[in-house]
Amino acid sequence: QWMMLDWKPRRPDMLIDPFGLGRIVQDGLVFRQNFSIRSYEIGADRTASIETLMNHLQESALNHVKSAGLWGDGFGSTPEMCKKNLIWVVTKMQVKVDRYPTWGDVVQVDTQVAQSGKNGMRRDWLVRDYKTGDILTRASSVWVMMNKETRRLSKMPDEVREEIGPYFVDSPPVVDEDSRKLPKLDDSTADYIRTGLSPKWSDLDINQHVNNVKYIGWILESAPLPILESHELSSMTLEYRKECGRDSVLQSLTAVSGSGIGNLLDSGYVECQHLLRLEGGAEIVKGRTEWRPKYANSLGNIGQLPAEST
Amino acid sequence: QWMMLDWKPRRPDMLIDPFGLGRIVQDGLVFRQNFSIRSYEIGADRTASIETLMNHLQESALNHVKSAGLWGDGFGSTPEMCKKNLIWVVTKMQVKVDRYPTWGDVVQVDTQVAQSGKNGMRRDWLVRDYKTGDILTRASSVWVMMNKETRRLSKMPDEVREEIGPYFVDSPPVVDEDSRKLPKLDDSTADYIRTGLSPKWSDLDINQHVNNVKYIGWILESAPLPILESHELSSMTLEYRKECGRDSVLQSLTAVSGSGIGNLLDSGYVECQHLLRLEGGAEIVKGRTEWRPKYANSLGNIGQLPAEST
Repeated sequence: QWMMLDWKPRRPDMLIDPFGLGRIVQDGLVFRQNFSIRSYEIGADRTASIETLMNHLQESALNHVKSAGLWGDGFGSTPEMCKKNLIWVVTKMQVKVDRYPTWGDVVQVDTQVAQSGKNGMRRDWLVRDYKTGDILTRASSVWVMMNKETRRLSKMPDEVREEIGPYFVDSPPVVDEDSRKLPKLDDSTADYIRTGLSPKWSDLDINQHVNNVKYIGWILESAPLPILESHELSSMTLEYRKECGRDSVLQSLTAVSGSGIGNLLDSGYVECQHLLRLEGGAEIVKGRTEWRPKYANSLGNIGQLPAEST
Repeated sequence: QWMMLDWKPRRPDMLIDPFGLGRIVQDGLVFRQNFSIRSYEIGADRTASIETLMNHLQESALNHVKSAGLWGDGFGSTPEMCKKNLIWVVTKMQVKVDRYPTWGDVVQVDTQVAQSGKNGMRRDWLVRDYKTGDILTRASSVWVMMNKETRRLSKMPDEVREEIGPYFVDSPPVVDEDSRKLPKLDDSTADYIRTGLSPKWSDLDINQHVNNVKYIGWILESAPLPILESHELSSMTLEYRKECGRDSVLQSLTAVSGSGIGNLLDSGYVECQHLLRLEGGAEIVKGRTEWRPKYANSLGNIGQLPAEST
């Protein structure tokens, strides 16, 4: 019964969600779900991986749709979307990670939706440490509709707007939009290229497509090991261009910005550009990542590291 | 608040484990933890993958060690093991899956340990559907100790036996031991070979080693797609021979037993032999898997399928 000593649930709301499936809070516009970080969700650093965080974002978004009573069929489509054969596809994702949780930590994920342009929906997430209330991660994404048969993007039908409109909040994104253009990346401008990446059977989702979270692992496949070992991902912007099926063979390209990896590691902060493309050349995902030295964040000001720190 | 309508917690014990971290039950010898299946833990079939099940087994085992007050450091080592630089390594794993849970299902994992030979420990798991009580999965594993520095196997020191002995149960394994020898598999006897498999950064655990659950994905990489599409894994026996590090490049070999895949698919049930080896030839994992046609189990007697079933 150690967990009753270690973990005093300070908020009675835990008791009404015994399976951790989440619930709607704050006037019905915010969905909240808690996740405890598991041993298999942490990596060599003992902290949760970025894929784990993204999985929690996905799960809370789907449960939000369910708990709002807007579950049609498939993966988050509303009843009206199902009638019209429409599915959601993500076009942009921005994530800022202030701190990665570790095994046993409980994270509280809040998510809400908003209008994005005429035909899109924005979905934001705010992830906190449940015990301290500290903000760990902020994320913002843009979604549009695609016809399941033709695979073409679709306007948002009025019937769908009537379903989801009442849930739209009128607030700015939790992450400022990164409107810097993602530079073109090809064989000559990339510093690292990893070829021959292909989905495993277990990477496919119920639509027999590769889930967008899987792309992140492939993108990081071409990030140089010295960066992965000494740095942690602090920020990520992804633009999804084209879907990838189960027979696709992909290439992952990374360019390290600035004057080469040696100098950047000295100066501490690293920025990378990424491209995931089909072997034929079609762009699947473009991205930018920012990295900070590990432990920099937990030690506070990196200019005042004690001399004997390792 | 839909989940309060859909999910009536019938047992008050949920209320004393609000974060789902598990607790010791039944005279202190069984550890019990519930897991709700998440959207990202299911595959193209909409059911949890075998890796998901194995992850839940690992998590419950580690939390068992923690809640028993036997947590030293690292991944499940007791205080006395830490003093002597010993870690646990798995040598054998047998799993029988009666039914795979789906998204939103809650599974209840019970685990206990027993003596295995003079120097080993057996760990068993029984996984039930929380709502119905139906048994979903049974698993049994054998663990021995290895010196972290020399990487040699070690006898179980008396001091460690005194720590863990009081938790040993005196009952037979939940899965009958599969003592059939795993046949030798090589380039000439394998039907399918997949080469060039290597760990991703995110596959490494906190010991910078590849976690044993990851091996299962690689083993299934060489299983033929027609089997993965039409069948589900019903049984698995794995023997772990050698560890694999982060720079290893692996080959996955599969042989389909009997008279070829065409006939076996007709007759319904399929057995495969597997080998995961280093490119240099050293054996990492040997295994046997058994497969049954999808839906066979949920329809009961396969001999009485209704004519119009799809």
